[in-house]
Amino acid sequence: MSLKILSKDDIFTEKPEWREPGRSDYLAMYSSVFDGVVTDPALMVIPIDDHIINRGDGIFEYFPVHEGYAYCFEAHMTRLQRSAEIISLDLPFDIDTIRKISLETVAISGAKACGVRIFISRGMGDFLCDPTTPKKPLMYVIVLKENPLPTTPPAGVTAITTHVPLKPDFYAQVKTTCYLLNALVELEAHRNHVRYGVWFDNEGHLAESSIDSAAIVSKDNVFMYPRFEHILKGTGLVRMAQLAKELVKTGELAGICQGDITRQDVYEASEIYILGSGDILPVIKFDGRTVGDGKPGPIGRRLWELATKDRLEGPPEVRTPIPYKK
Amino acid sequence: MSLKILSKDDIFTEKPEWREPGRSDYLAMYSSVFDGVVTDPALMVIPIDDHIINRGDGIFEYFPVHEGYAYCFEAHMTRLQRSAEIISLDLPFDIDTIRKISLETVAISGAKACGVRIFISRGMGDFLCDPTTPKKPLMYVIVLKENPLPTTPPAGVTAITTHVPLKPDFYAQVKTTCYLLNALVELEAHRNHVRYGVWFDNEGHLAESSIDSAAIVSKDNVFMYPRFEHILKGTGLVRMAQLAKELVKTGELAGICQGDITRQDVYEASEIYILGSGDILPVIKFDGRTVGDGKPGPIGRRLWELATKDRLEGPPEVRTPIPYKK
Repeated sequence: MSLKILSKDDIFTEKPEWREPGRSDYLAMYSSVFDGVVTDPALMVIPIDDHIINRGDGIFEYFPVHEGYAYCFEAHMTRLQRSAEIISLDLPFDIDTIRKISLETVAISGAKACGVRIFISRGMGDFLCDPTTPKKPLMYVIVLKENPLPTTPPAGVTAITTHVPLKPDFYAQVKTTCYLLNALVELEAHRNHVRYGVWFDNEGHLAESSIDSAAIVSKDNVFMYPRFEHILKGTGLVRMAQLAKELVKTGELAGICQGDITRQDVYEASEIYILGSGDILPVIKFDGRTVGDGKPGPIGRRLWELATKDRLEGPPEVRTPIPYKK
Repeated sequence: MSLKILSKDDIFTEKPEWREPGRSDYLAMYSSVFDGVVTDPALMVIPIDDHIINRGDGIFEYFPVHEGYAYCFEAHMTRLQRSAEIISLDLPFDIDTIRKISLETVAISGAKACGVRIFISRGMGDFLCDPTTPKKPLMYVIVLKENPLPTTPPAGVTAITTHVPLKPDFYAQVKTTCYLLNALVELEAHRNHVRYGVWFDNEGHLAESSIDSAAIVSKDNVFMYPRFEHILKGTGLVRMAQLAKELVKTGELAGICQGDITRQDVYEASEIYILGSGDILPVIKFDGRTVGDGKPGPIGRRLWELATKDRLEGPPEVRTPIPYKK
């Protein structure tokens, strides 16, 4: 065999084939390596020696932008700092600069509806594992086109208990890019013809899904969600638990409770949800058992209404304006 | 603040500052994305949407090249296939093509002494976690300059038991790039002013080090190494166990045993080793306790001699010639 030796111009042609098709939804990327923003998807690359690649030594956050406002942005900034702290990763900039870079990259993209991913890595290094050898941490922000929010409530989804092991203790609370186990949860779900896999922890309590949180409405009509001891603190879930208070006031819910949820609680639940950043998907079949009457339930429907309103018209603390150029 | 918007020519200048200093040891990189080999370190980049970055959904192998021969290359090819199989990752090429691409990339670098890293990723995707969405798996090979083998035996190193949790069950047997826990083991060692951290498994048996294997010579003069149930199958360790048979023949060792090694076995050991691909480092202090008489022991010295001979003059099954162009 004879491998081709490539130059810059071989790789970064006008419209490189390797970057096609379907990358028109990659709108803008900030890189602290390049010290600026690129809008050509072919230039959205990172150095192979970044420890985030060869050692998974990095963290990330995702936040959505709806109608020009970042949703629950501050909660994501707080979690980013917490993830960094747990793994002793120095942030490449102070948090206010990280905030500004993130929002300005969205502004450059011009997108009013998008998803934004922030990656912080240990930095470029020597392909070894030692976190002290990279010279400095790095930051990447990528802005991805997304559809505007749907105007009808989501359809029901199916889920199973996963057999993939849960990440060990403190590690599960870091939003690290080491998501292979999470990917395997999705693969297992796929093979079992369901949409989601859900972890229970070693004590048998409901934990989380591959990239989302999980919660239930108990048979006693209480909105129950897991303690954040063995799992990631879901920003969407935390916000949903706040919004759910409205339904306690109206008497639609009997209460809200963060605590241990057993498998029996889940099997007897009147509603089960998979929750992301403002998304709430009703699980209508879990481990092959029909949930409630097998249709999305009334509480989930009401929470979806509250979340949609919050995303589009919520208070300033959950809606951060993007500084678009005039 | 005002972020710069960058073009291809802003980033890939003649000698980009962001790629300096000290990357003269990155000799060549093959990328199945670019479909060829680059030798300019600035072009050694991978697309940000490769799932190996945002989900750690990839595997890797490392093998050294000594005097123009790849060491234990076939063992690494076998483990690569096994890692892929465990996480249901389709290899991007048949194993013979992977073999040829890897060796030819070394040939293009021209290096006679180098380290080679192969990465196989789930592929470019959508920044989600689902392993079924990337179109096709990808492969990268990077060749790094290394020093010729030392002619004197290695000095003693220090080690401690790590408090970082071990990766859960089958996951520990995959050479995935999700090495954050391993990186944290190194950080903990660093902070405790020792060179290595060593895991014990949940049953209290000696497991492995952050990126290397561990083994001991027991007080009864038996070379003991852990079962590969909760840890990676170390290719260097497996080869060392074969080479050690020579020392049983000569009577220098009483035997060789793969089995459960308790903490007491380790504390009473006459020698303790950290082992990589042909490397064997004597641990002279473990958890603050002096090992043997506090100096590298005689068995380690003999194993180092055997390994060095094996690396430079071993049989064809451990030494694969690099197909340099005439």
